[in-house]
Amino acid sequence: MLKLFEYNWQVRKDWLDWCDSVAEDELLKIRTGGPGSILYTLFHIVDVEYGWISMMQGKTFPPMPPSFKDYASVQKLRDYSASCHEGIAPFVYGWNSGMESLILDDQNESGELEQFQYGEVMRHVLAHEIHHIGQLSIWSREIGKQPVTANLIRRGLFDR
Amino acid sequence: MLKLFEYNWQVRKDWLDWCDSVAEDELLKIRTGGPGSILYTLFHIVDVEYGWISMMQGKTFPPMPPSFKDYASVQKLRDYSASCHEGIAPFVYGWNSGMESLILDDQNESGELEQFQYGEVMRHVLAHEIHHIGQLSIWSREIGKQPVTANLIRRGLFDR
Repeated sequence: MLKLFEYNWQVRKDWLDWCDSVAEDELLKIRTGGPGSILYTLFHIVDVEYGWISMMQGKTFPPMPPSFKDYASVQKLRDYSASCHEGIAPFVYGWNSGMESLILDDQNESGELEQFQYGEVMRHVLAHEIHHIGQLSIWSREIGKQPVTANLIRRGLFDR
Repeated sequence: MLKLFEYNWQVRKDWLDWCDSVAEDELLKIRTGGPGSILYTLFHIVDVEYGWISMMQGKTFPPMPPSFKDYASVQKLRDYSASCHEGIAPFVYGWNSGMESLILDDQNESGELEQFQYGEVMRHVLAHEIHHIGQLSIWSREIGKQPVTANLIRRGLFDR
């Protein structure tokens, strides 16, 4: 589990660095298919990971969810990602198989109560980020730039 | 590990079913950003999963890799995916933590010998499919169709 989170965090950092070489209007342009712009997609990735893992940590959310307009630049987003990471990394590093079937109660957007296993939520968060990063790779080519590699191998994650 | 493979297999099936409702010229049109067309991307996903897992199974490859032109329709691709699945599913279902650090020797495209841990290869294959499915979701919106949901929750993968 941890290795896939480390992969996501490394890839996300690579994409934030990639953003440094792209004009801000390209980063903020609303695009077809994903959640919005390139920067909004990265914001959404951070936000969703933080939201789900905070719930499993039993944290109370701030009264209002963060607003993208407060983070709509590469450096602000980098800081936001780092700050969220600090909050959730201890949970990910402390993960063990005994936590797999713990139950998270969640009220969905329709107000219904849903229950998920912690192991299900963790994998949902992992797949969520990889999926949206795949979308960024298309937009990257659309603006004529080479995307960050999605390869998990050759990233030093499994050094011996 | 297994749950994420099951997620990928279920999502892949959903995308193949989605293809049934799309004109073949749209499915075969070369698009910007991914490996090629929608059908080629699905072929590539199947091929890469089969290739890596076959190597870990110690299987000898057929002398020539499969050619996309032999599988360039939804039903042929569905059959190809099923046939590859039959070959590799026993390995995935038989996975255990003792296999994590086994070493796979691989000759890369430049002819150099590389070594990967089995656990690294398994996660690479998982991330590979999710990444490319993210690309399909963009193209789906481009042709005005709702994509298959990428949610891992609410798929019955963790039924209690």
